[in-house]
Amino acid sequence: MNAQTPSSSDNTAAPLSYEQAGVNYDLIDPLKVSAQRAAAATAQHVAAHGFAEVAASRGESAYVVDVGPFYIASIVECLGSKALVADEMAQLTGRSFYEGIAQDTIAMAVNDLITVGATPLVVQAYWAAGGSDWFGDAQRAQALVAGWKAACDTCGVAWGGGETPALAGIVEAGRIDLAASCTGLINPKERLSVGDKLAAGDAIVLLASSGIHANGLSLARKLTERLPQGYLTPLTSGQTYGEALLAPTTLYSPVTEALYKAGITPHYCANITGHGWRKLLRHPARFTYRIDAVPEVPEVLKFIAQHAGHDDREAYSTLNMGAGFALFVRAEDAQRTAEIAQSQGIPALVAGRVEEGDKQLLIEPLGIRFGDDDLQLR
Amino acid sequence: MNAQTPSSSDNTAAPLSYEQAGVNYDLIDPLKVSAQRAAAATAQHVAAHGFAEVAASRGESAYVVDVGPFYIASIVECLGSKALVADEMAQLTGRSFYEGIAQDTIAMAVNDLITVGATPLVVQAYWAAGGSDWFGDAQRAQALVAGWKAACDTCGVAWGGGETPALAGIVEAGRIDLAASCTGLINPKERLSVGDKLAAGDAIVLLASSGIHANGLSLARKLTERLPQGYLTPLTSGQTYGEALLAPTTLYSPVTEALYKAGITPHYCANITGHGWRKLLRHPARFTYRIDAVPEVPEVLKFIAQHAGHDDREAYSTLNMGAGFALFVRAEDAQRTAEIAQSQGIPALVAGRVEEGDKQLLIEPLGIRFGDDDLQLR
Repeated sequence: MNAQTPSSSDNTAAPLSYEQAGVNYDLIDPLKVSAQRAAAATAQHVAAHGFAEVAASRGESAYVVDVGPFYIASIVECLGSKALVADEMAQLTGRSFYEGIAQDTIAMAVNDLITVGATPLVVQAYWAAGGSDWFGDAQRAQALVAGWKAACDTCGVAWGGGETPALAGIVEAGRIDLAASCTGLINPKERLSVGDKLAAGDAIVLLASSGIHANGLSLARKLTERLPQGYLTPLTSGQTYGEALLAPTTLYSPVTEALYKAGITPHYCANITGHGWRKLLRHPARFTYRIDAVPEVPEVLKFIAQHAGHDDREAYSTLNMGAGFALFVRAEDAQRTAEIAQSQGIPALVAGRVEEGDKQLLIEPLGIRFGDDDLQLR
Repeated sequence: MNAQTPSSSDNTAAPLSYEQAGVNYDLIDPLKVSAQRAAAATAQHVAAHGFAEVAASRGESAYVVDVGPFYIASIVECLGSKALVADEMAQLTGRSFYEGIAQDTIAMAVNDLITVGATPLVVQAYWAAGGSDWFGDAQRAQALVAGWKAACDTCGVAWGGGETPALAGIVEAGRIDLAASCTGLINPKERLSVGDKLAAGDAIVLLASSGIHANGLSLARKLTERLPQGYLTPLTSGQTYGEALLAPTTLYSPVTEALYKAGITPHYCANITGHGWRKLLRHPARFTYRIDAVPEVPEVLKFIAQHAGHDDREAYSTLNMGAGFALFVRAEDAQRTAEIAQSQGIPALVAGRVEEGDKQLLIEPLGIRFGDDDLQLR
């Protein structure tokens, strides 16, 4: 099924790294660097139209342009390989999981867009199938439509349109490549959060994840080779591994919108995706992030860490471990921030604080330290 | 190579239809309709933010929202299967054609976005490869970066960022799924062109295409099975079929921007992509479009029509036949519109006019009529 990952493998309990799961960042990163350099050199075009890019957004999760009365943020994001889990589970159970997959895809775009303080305004759908026949499975196709619509409703974002190409020869037969683009406004402009407000003394509020979200799936899929019952392996709760993996990614924009209405402007936000908790080190400045309380870890993430032979340090460096989104707010706003998230149905925890000091993340309850180098590694 | 298109085929000269080339719109269209209906039902979210969608843009090439001082237009567009031609030609010639492929991808988004009167502001790159190793071919990857940057420069658009996922198991090994999202402003708001200005008496100005652009490639690829030398078949000019197919799509935003600066606001625009000249019937109102002059047909399109056994009617209903973009302008602006396009290096022709009457396109020099039903068919 996976053309890149060796399908024959020993079923021993040797630790399984992300690289073994088929992703080689050493090959991707040189391209990324050269693309980023070329992209940065196009900034003057915005100026030619009388506007200005927010240069600090170049290293952030969404690109921001100052168009006068407000800022415009935009982004395109890919779901990744989670759809492959849905496909396998559909074969095993006869159920369609594409309603959740649609939410996952929108979450990838929206949860990144809101980190800069934007209100998502328009989402575009990119559904590239391996052939016209993908769309012939009406149940699956309607689940994708229904889930996409529902996620737009949750985020208060208009579904503007999109593309549904049939790409035989590029996308594999029977598969679909899902992505979403999103455009939003930072309005009023004071909502902009590209990091200039972050300060020592700020509190770190962690919003609960619903499970693996859509990052770490290469590892999670690879792991099924070690499980005699594969995706149907029951977890302690009785839910199967596959079902648990397919819990849809939490949409966090209702929280950021509710915070704005309550008068709370985060000083910084981090969407915890690839690289797990190392994303808490995303801000370019030198600060120490001291965590004194960690959220409950979703059962499926404990299971993955255990079966992949990961210690806490490796697990927290790869997976979200129960924290899907981090808000950095004034200390006096911390408790209310958590309460507002909870009022939106999302458990939240005042987990720690920002301090002067070396650039590092200290997860004290687990005795873990990540330094600046740990995020640069990939 | 192409998992959906039967690879065994008779090499006779029987006419080759688009459906035979592997695209079945009957399977895609029900999904499109239900997606469009669900998308339309999300409009109230824009209102909840104090803004308003431009409902007339729902049937157009880009989605438009009124945010007060100006309109925001957004879009995501896929390249389609043209990259497969570049991959084949790279194997046959040792050359990389990805600089042109990058331009093609941006053209798909930008040429659609400008139809509503927008100035493209930000482009995001979506480059989903079949595995990390795609990015390991430095020459090809750098060509993609360089071409993307150059196309942004031509269009005066900022390259905001993007995604470069490695999607083994979804995208085929060695392949890449390319798309672009684009956000633009309609500013001043008078530039909005979603069709309300189109009127009988308007002139139709056709802008030259550079070749096949990025539509009709399934057919063009299928045709190589009938050519003993395949992509290396020489055309009359001496250029090979493959090289001619890979001529990058013309970027038309320099023309629409120059028109604005010259005080000319098109009443309507049509990007001529899939469905060929039937796209001239895109506007929802009932008008007769009478064409009395047709542009020169690029050699490669003549070649395709001839070898696919297409008569003029079928060729003009599928391919751009030398006209990549149509501008509908006041009759008194027609000649100057063509001159302004030419000043941007793009040949242009005052080709006909809009008249009261049945909804139809009359290509008089060729005796072709397309009625309303001809665009509904797909």
